[in-house]
Amino acid sequence: MSAPNRATLHARVLVDELAKTGVSSVCVAPGSRSTPLTVAADAHPDLVVFSHLDERSASFFALGRAKRAGDPVALVCTSGTAAANFHPAVIEASQARVPLVALTADRPPELRDSGANQTIDQEKLYGDAVRYYDDLPEPAVEDRTLRSLRVRVDRAVTAATGTHPGPVHLNVPFAKPLEPTAVPDDSPHAVPEGWADDHPLAARGRDGPFVATTAGRMALDESALAALSEAITNAERGLLVAGPTDRGYAPALVALAEASGFPILADPLSGLRYGPHTADVPVYGAYDGYLDERVTAAWPAPDVVVRTGASPTSKPLRRYLAREGARQFVVDPAGEWREATFRATDLVTADPGLLAVELAERLDTESADWPGFERAERVHAAEVTAAEGRFEGAIARRVVADAPDPATLVVSNSMPVRDVDRFAAPRDAALTVLGNRGASGIDGITSTALGAGSATDEPLVLLIGDLAYYHDANGLLALERCGVDATIVLVNNDGGGIFHMLPIEAFDPPFEGQFRTPHGLDFAPTAALYGFDYVRVGAGDDFADAYRASLASDGTQVIEVTSDAERSHRTRESIRERVVARLDE
Amino acid sequence: MSAPNRATLHARVLVDELAKTGVSSVCVAPGSRSTPLTVAADAHPDLVVFSHLDERSASFFALGRAKRAGDPVALVCTSGTAAANFHPAVIEASQARVPLVALTADRPPELRDSGANQTIDQEKLYGDAVRYYDDLPEPAVEDRTLRSLRVRVDRAVTAATGTHPGPVHLNVPFAKPLEPTAVPDDSPHAVPEGWADDHPLAARGRDGPFVATTAGRMALDESALAALSEAITNAERGLLVAGPTDRGYAPALVALAEASGFPILADPLSGLRYGPHTADVPVYGAYDGYLDERVTAAWPAPDVVVRTGASPTSKPLRRYLAREGARQFVVDPAGEWREATFRATDLVTADPGLLAVELAERLDTESADWPGFERAERVHAAEVTAAEGRFEGAIARRVVADAPDPATLVVSNSMPVRDVDRFAAPRDAALTVLGNRGASGIDGITSTALGAGSATDEPLVLLIGDLAYYHDANGLLALERCGVDATIVLVNNDGGGIFHMLPIEAFDPPFEGQFRTPHGLDFAPTAALYGFDYVRVGAGDDFADAYRASLASDGTQVIEVTSDAERSHRTRESIRERVVARLDE
Repeated sequence: MSAPNRATLHARVLVDELAKTGVSSVCVAPGSRSTPLTVAADAHPDLVVFSHLDERSASFFALGRAKRAGDPVALVCTSGTAAANFHPAVIEASQARVPLVALTADRPPELRDSGANQTIDQEKLYGDAVRYYDDLPEPAVEDRTLRSLRVRVDRAVTAATGTHPGPVHLNVPFAKPLEPTAVPDDSPHAVPEGWADDHPLAARGRDGPFVATTAGRMALDESALAALSEAITNAERGLLVAGPTDRGYAPALVALAEASGFPILADPLSGLRYGPHTADVPVYGAYDGYLDERVTAAWPAPDVVVRTGASPTSKPLRRYLAREGARQFVVDPAGEWREATFRATDLVTADPGLLAVELAERLDTESADWPGFERAERVHAAEVTAAEGRFEGAIARRVVADAPDPATLVVSNSMPVRDVDRFAAPRDAALTVLGNRGASGIDGITSTALGAGSATDEPLVLLIGDLAYYHDANGLLALERCGVDATIVLVNNDGGGIFHMLPIEAFDPPFEGQFRTPHGLDFAPTAALYGFDYVRVGAGDDFADAYRASLASDGTQVIEVTSDAERSHRTRESIRERVVARLDE
Repeated sequence: MSAPNRATLHARVLVDELAKTGVSSVCVAPGSRSTPLTVAADAHPDLVVFSHLDERSASFFALGRAKRAGDPVALVCTSGTAAANFHPAVIEASQARVPLVALTADRPPELRDSGANQTIDQEKLYGDAVRYYDDLPEPAVEDRTLRSLRVRVDRAVTAATGTHPGPVHLNVPFAKPLEPTAVPDDSPHAVPEGWADDHPLAARGRDGPFVATTAGRMALDESALAALSEAITNAERGLLVAGPTDRGYAPALVALAEASGFPILADPLSGLRYGPHTADVPVYGAYDGYLDERVTAAWPAPDVVVRTGASPTSKPLRRYLAREGARQFVVDPAGEWREATFRATDLVTADPGLLAVELAERLDTESADWPGFERAERVHAAEVTAAEGRFEGAIARRVVADAPDPATLVVSNSMPVRDVDRFAAPRDAALTVLGNRGASGIDGITSTALGAGSATDEPLVLLIGDLAYYHDANGLLALERCGVDATIVLVNNDGGGIFHMLPIEAFDPPFEGQFRTPHGLDFAPTAALYGFDYVRVGAGDDFADAYRASLASDGTQVIEVTSDAERSHRTRESIRERVVARLDE
């Protein structure tokens, strides 16, 4: 049996090659022009298809799933503005290095820029945010064409998953018929004789990828490794700084920490703040709460800093690193310069995992202790514990501290990720903490979380602010539609609490109306809309109880914690001041 | 008094120049990097500021407001993915020729591509979808710099409102301080002496635009006009085809219809289907329901067709025009070729309003009657009236037929606009009917409607399908936040009813799961979420009663009409078949 028409065969081959190169799931938003792709994805035995109704949420779901799974996820949409709705997630994927394969259906070339309905200029729609772009040729069925198609798909997936992973974009034109409708043999859309499904190039005629990719990793040569290990060996006092990344470099970096004696300053999104290794090597996580010139003036300065991942979430940490004048090695597999204080002294283009293992094998040093960090972490923990009840930081702390082991936690931007950064201490538990710190937008985080949840059997927790909850409320549809359960902790301070941290707070108007922007929304009806339990908790232990109860339950619960942003901000400030004052004594 | 720092002064000047060139409103989404723009907009006495929390909804609100008002609307957002959320509306604005001024705040150049937080590549973010793009220089305060800034703003607004109106994009970098905070005199961010607010180039030192723009309109010369009027005069039988446009060409085109004797085939979004002129010249609006080869085979063919606006919504009309081999004049002020059947014989680059008036003055012809159209419209109306009760087309018909005079109606894509096209007959009432037919996306229509409503005191009606309602549910926040009331008619057929029109209906799976995609959502909780009345109506006259009651009430009501998409589709088909059969007799 062969495909009933060219578009059907073309899409079957394209989708089959995706599956053969390691794509195992596709997020689809319904549409007409994309019919061949949707039909092919739905029919493919090796693909899971998630159906979404809002392309923006679809793309963030794909992002979250790809982050958690570490595998590329494909996206399918119809022509027109649908494709533009992928743009925010494509940018986030680019900056966070998450492999996505965006397939946007398009009109055939003769209808572009013609006034035809739902036809926009989709060429290079995502600009430089994608690692590979191709405007595929129209479906045609001949040996070279289908070889070319399979090769292009292989190239796209290879680019998405390479040394500099990220999104890729295939624009896919289709003429009618779009459906798997038989056409007459003499139709230009007919599949010629001999292209049965078991043809080596056709839909089900292959095992494995058409072109197998064997990808190297960036590795330093012996002399470069020797120079680096010498610098580390000669350092009196060093630090490893682990910034946000979704790559699995943690074991190697722990080995490096052990071999070098350098403690790890671990961003919550680095994969290093939480895990069994925290019992074995010094991992510091409260630095956002105490790094201050008054404190660190008395400390010995680090002479070597080794940085991996993106720029840390913590501004006090970034400032500390900028101040201390150490030799700073920024390790990046893609050779990007992600260090915006411009204090890096050395860029190391190398795979951080590989490099860390190689260095660990060469090192056998004793680095000096860091009594300053040790004490500061203790003092900070004590002051946080002593602080009055339920400010937002305490919620963030508890969300992490009481999370099951293992669990996947997703945190929204703006205050939640900052509160987790400052208040959620390292823990000997297999917690995967994810956030969208590529572009640090407030958008799409619910979908990101549910996408991540779809890729794991672990309990899923989302810590989210009210603006982020509103922004991606559409993402909640995936709970039922994609079969994901979650515990969602919604910290509701009725507006942009983060603006209390900024000088604009002193200017009202426009502070209330244009920055804090209280919305007065009661989010409880979202529970009836999307089908989950909703609890609003008051003071004291209510949150802890509700959180535990949710973690022990099936289904999804939203636990809303109403909060006063200004009071929370003052509490954060006063804890920091007390910590700094004690450390400055 | 002068501005406390350069960023503040720069933004004040920019925003002041916007106001001086005819921008009267700004849609703002809160953010930090955009603080100088937000503060300046909020403080400007001639600007209305609408605050939104989702940039996607903000941009579609701006689109709707600009469509209804005919004036450019500005948009402000912070750096990062916020700006990408404008992309769908920017594309729609480009294709529908709606003037928008997108102002995206950015990091200063030295922080770009550095790994700095919330910093993405915003240069040419919207590609070719904008009429003007500029990456503004950093704030500096000197004579030439501020002259340049005012000129750039003037250029942007002129481009947005010119012969080919549409969106423009100014990327605006700011370094800290972003707030109106005083800085020391020797700071590089200080405003030098002599730049008090009443300085001729500073914030409040000017009346009128810095450079006044006098824009011509595309006008034909005498010989071209003579040739065109000769073609029309010599035509035995002609048609005017008015496609979607938001420009006010209606009176001129009516004059042309009167002078030429050509009837008008009026798209519901053309500005010509509804209005007092429908009592004076033949305006046909049901053609989508009867144009069919079996019917028109017996009709005399038109020998001249004059087309204005974008491609008509009706596919039967497009096919009819493609079939008949007439001389087809496509009139477009921007000289675009919006005719995707490639049957145009003449492109006329001229302002349609000006051209129609010029031609009307030169013409004094008797065009032959169109008994075919006359009879077909009557037969269609009779069959629709006779059809069983409440299918979706009857709802669309009643929404228009019972709308107050005047009123602003907004219709969503997919089925609602097609049902209005086919079933909502011409009416002698001042109805402004708007839809997003530029790119024909399903996104952003609630925001578009509320934006349109914000620009008029007329009653506002939105006819919307369930997928569109879900897609832009965030837009409902503008009801309270931006002070707009509406009657929202939500036709809920639980999924993509339009797919019943397409051949994919015959293939299940994947039809139900990937195309019709029932969501099972009960939308009633959106009323509690966003604060309005919600009525769900059953069969018979319930809808008419609820619709009348809503139109007579203050506040916002959502009237949900539950509908069976498949049955509605069969009813549409059977009416069409009966109409065609009767006309084919």
